[in-house]
Amino acid sequence: MGGLYINNKLTGGVFPIKDGKLQIIPLGGLGEIGKNMMVIKYHDTIIVIDVGLMFPEEELLGIDMVIPDMSYLLENKDKVKAVLLTHGHEDHIGGMPYFLKQFDVPVYGTRLTLGLLNAKLKEAGIARASLNVVAPRDVLNIGPFKIEFIKVSHSIPDTVGIAVHTPVGTIVHTGDFKLDPTPVDGKVTDFYKLAELGEKGVLVLMSDSTNAERPGFTLSEKTVGNTFEETFRVAEGRIIIATFASNVHRLQQAIYTAHKFKRKVAIVGRSMVNVVEIANELGYLDIPDGLLIDLDEINRYPHKQVVILTTGSQGEPMSALTRMAMSEHRQVEIVAGDTVIISAMPIPGNEKLVARIIDQLFKLGAKVIYEAVSGIHVSGHPSQEELKIMINLLKPKYFVPIHGEFRHLIKHAEIARELGIKPHNIFVVENGQVLEFTKKSGRLAGKVPAGRVLVDGLGVGDVGNIVLRDRKQLAQDGIIIVVLTLNRESGDIVAGPDIVTRGFVYVRESEQLIDEAKQKVTEALERCFNHGLLEWSAIKSQVRDALGKYLFEKTRRRPMILPIIMEI
Amino acid sequence: MGGLYINNKLTGGVFPIKDGKLQIIPLGGLGEIGKNMMVIKYHDTIIVIDVGLMFPEEELLGIDMVIPDMSYLLENKDKVKAVLLTHGHEDHIGGMPYFLKQFDVPVYGTRLTLGLLNAKLKEAGIARASLNVVAPRDVLNIGPFKIEFIKVSHSIPDTVGIAVHTPVGTIVHTGDFKLDPTPVDGKVTDFYKLAELGEKGVLVLMSDSTNAERPGFTLSEKTVGNTFEETFRVAEGRIIIATFASNVHRLQQAIYTAHKFKRKVAIVGRSMVNVVEIANELGYLDIPDGLLIDLDEINRYPHKQVVILTTGSQGEPMSALTRMAMSEHRQVEIVAGDTVIISAMPIPGNEKLVARIIDQLFKLGAKVIYEAVSGIHVSGHPSQEELKIMINLLKPKYFVPIHGEFRHLIKHAEIARELGIKPHNIFVVENGQVLEFTKKSGRLAGKVPAGRVLVDGLGVGDVGNIVLRDRKQLAQDGIIIVVLTLNRESGDIVAGPDIVTRGFVYVRESEQLIDEAKQKVTEALERCFNHGLLEWSAIKSQVRDALGKYLFEKTRRRPMILPIIMEI
Repeated sequence: MGGLYINNKLTGGVFPIKDGKLQIIPLGGLGEIGKNMMVIKYHDTIIVIDVGLMFPEEELLGIDMVIPDMSYLLENKDKVKAVLLTHGHEDHIGGMPYFLKQFDVPVYGTRLTLGLLNAKLKEAGIARASLNVVAPRDVLNIGPFKIEFIKVSHSIPDTVGIAVHTPVGTIVHTGDFKLDPTPVDGKVTDFYKLAELGEKGVLVLMSDSTNAERPGFTLSEKTVGNTFEETFRVAEGRIIIATFASNVHRLQQAIYTAHKFKRKVAIVGRSMVNVVEIANELGYLDIPDGLLIDLDEINRYPHKQVVILTTGSQGEPMSALTRMAMSEHRQVEIVAGDTVIISAMPIPGNEKLVARIIDQLFKLGAKVIYEAVSGIHVSGHPSQEELKIMINLLKPKYFVPIHGEFRHLIKHAEIARELGIKPHNIFVVENGQVLEFTKKSGRLAGKVPAGRVLVDGLGVGDVGNIVLRDRKQLAQDGIIIVVLTLNRESGDIVAGPDIVTRGFVYVRESEQLIDEAKQKVTEALERCFNHGLLEWSAIKSQVRDALGKYLFEKTRRRPMILPIIMEI
Repeated sequence: MGGLYINNKLTGGVFPIKDGKLQIIPLGGLGEIGKNMMVIKYHDTIIVIDVGLMFPEEELLGIDMVIPDMSYLLENKDKVKAVLLTHGHEDHIGGMPYFLKQFDVPVYGTRLTLGLLNAKLKEAGIARASLNVVAPRDVLNIGPFKIEFIKVSHSIPDTVGIAVHTPVGTIVHTGDFKLDPTPVDGKVTDFYKLAELGEKGVLVLMSDSTNAERPGFTLSEKTVGNTFEETFRVAEGRIIIATFASNVHRLQQAIYTAHKFKRKVAIVGRSMVNVVEIANELGYLDIPDGLLIDLDEINRYPHKQVVILTTGSQGEPMSALTRMAMSEHRQVEIVAGDTVIISAMPIPGNEKLVARIIDQLFKLGAKVIYEAVSGIHVSGHPSQEELKIMINLLKPKYFVPIHGEFRHLIKHAEIARELGIKPHNIFVVENGQVLEFTKKSGRLAGKVPAGRVLVDGLGVGDVGNIVLRDRKQLAQDGIIIVVLTLNRESGDIVAGPDIVTRGFVYVRESEQLIDEAKQKVTEALERCFNHGLLEWSAIKSQVRDALGKYLFEKTRRRPMILPIIMEI
């Protein structure tokens, strides 16, 4: 944490530009869950709130992660003055390593947020970065902006919302929040500050839409602690708890419950070990002395005295929990009598993976406690009644639902309308759409480039639609490669045609098919030569057509057909 | 329907084998949702209940459908005497075309079930099959078995459960069911028959576990009709309803509601058109005269007088609804004012596809009514209180939860235990496990081959693990093909090495990478020749290693590397 220092008064006072135009430009997180990134611009000053990543949808074959397209900022590089971070989740800070490789600007965030970011930057080999710790209610001046950080509850400690006082009015960005009345760390959402902002007048509110479809009020994180207690009380063997590494509140409750029931705790999974270390060091996690043990030590204790905290609550194929469920974990073998608590909800798209782990654990004889059948997880995002309270506290003139897929934004907009915000003052916008505000008006003002940049291994943006289309075809029906060598002068085939396939059919059982395919290729080549078609592209296209037609007839499959011609 | 005839007295009376052993062998549907298939065997007689298919999980790249492994039955071909069908859903009859290509045995089912099967067989080019219509309470003798069909409610009409009276006792297979107190067709589950069986004594109950995790009682199908009414009452424009084609009750309610509100109905999507035709012809769908219009006619009516019934409730990429949402449908363009009702729940794995369609429809200005925000769908399967009633009605000695993933079976077993079934009389088994019953005992008795057969296009079982592994690698990072032509005698390279890639990187922006890769190949080849390594397999392995290492260093990707050597 050596790189962190506190600096609340960076670039001097408010510039005297008055009747200007304020622009709000979402670069991520609108029309999607993930890669949150918001740009706020007034004349020559741009500040950015959050730079997140998104985990790829299934059809992005082979892609590791997705980050926002930052080309608009690159075009306005000299105007970018700072990044403000709301909290330490991947969808809010995960794009920072890529951002900081291109922009050398100060970063502001709370201690835990910057602690987690710091670890991430080290891993990415970024040695120097200006990371500036702020605390709730701190005030910061950047160019024409006066910025305030406001404590909100969420599923990670040290989360803040952000108020930006601009020459045209105050805008509030809630970040991710919930109004948990009994947060685990006792730090309740700062209702006073929000109400004060509302009382003084808010021009624009941008608010978290993730759970806008859910009626009611999101349960307190503390309710999960109660379920932990009930489970610990009756468990006869080991207890294995899988949850998100970053949910420090959840880890804290597991740790306290383990302590209460006189069990030792072992931590498994790289990200879990990382977070526990950072949160503990920074004082966000209270771990009783002697409670933690090494995973190698668990067999020294009776099963009834052991808790294992692990990653893998999303059924990720390489995670510790998955390896345990598949009986492939080196140190932990699940046995009858173990209780496994999956303290998370499957992220959309992961349902099947998680279900498979649950089934597998049951087969090993474990008792499995999971979301569908018990109150073992609560959301970190606000339900409809909380959204209403936020709007009523801030009483904004303009409302912009953020953080959500399109239907969540639409639903949140409906809620705002019900609460009396004028329909033409509500903007349901997508990434890249520019919102422009003056003291008296708000309007859509065009578009800037926005979208997704795909990260695959070390490559950032080198996998595009053509590569993905090819991967999709390869995934579907495999590939057939036809190779032959021609004599340049005579035009004779001197080697081949040979056919090699991968991912198409099980070759040993399809010899006849392959033989006939070769025959079709030979016939196509003969037709070419007989008709004097000697252009490679013409030959390739004839081969592709003849072979494609034949294979589709025989198999109803359309593998990629790749003719390769060599010349000597 | 010409091929159907009624025959209730097929193979004579009950054989005089008395103190024998009855075997129950699940070949599908246990430990999974789908491809249901149950074998019941007594000495030389085998009957099969249902032969379903399953839609593939995502990791089964390119696979179209999955059917049960029937090799156990092929080994006992002469013993297989009949197939009994519980209802017309794909997961119960979808495997029949494959089954009937190998087994020439009579098929028994209700009229609608056989009507739907008949269409399926025609499509598969199966001209002759012995399809025998039965009705609830019909009795059938097959070898030592006396079989009764029992009316149950489900999301398709004409669904039955099956009681098999055997020399060792009565076994009951519920099929899929719910206890809907107000079914749309008025045909309530036959409580009397179930209670009578229970009173006389049931040896084994096999019961539907799909919803075993859900507390309470599944809502009646009629509640969806109420939601339709509320929606129709306020809709200003067209109403587009997407649902499962096979949910004839749902279609009936949509049709009645349309009629009530003086709207015409157009049917879209091949499977929807099929089912409406068959159900209408057989009298399972009541369509008022003049109600149906052709899709081409919809523009002749004001929007307020049009309803479109369509497939695509699962967001299937090629479905009519998806094409409408993507503005790619030839006849239906979604406009502001349209109301789209997605009357289905996403099947696990389809959540993202459905969500995308909803978002897209919102963007086109439609009002979208979907499961997460309204009572627009009810399940066709029993919740926990219904499962309890079924067990209490039948009071079985032995209990086997069927139709469900492992955790559903476990939950259902827990419920049975709560109701007083002895724990050692409850069998949670997987496909292929043999259960053996005598009058006095029940036990696990070994395993038979069971599993999945993958269907890809016309190929049944020709795609196995190797092909899938290749498809997975291709999907992940693409392929690199290295081709070269050698002179057999001199060992000189006379053409190449050339490198061709697909699905790896965007080649135009990675020329340097490819050039260097070619260099690495050349170096590897030189090393081979210098060391006298002239075996093709050795050369290929050297090329693969050198190239793989280089590419992983540069890109952190592991494409498939395929060296092809030709000789002249």
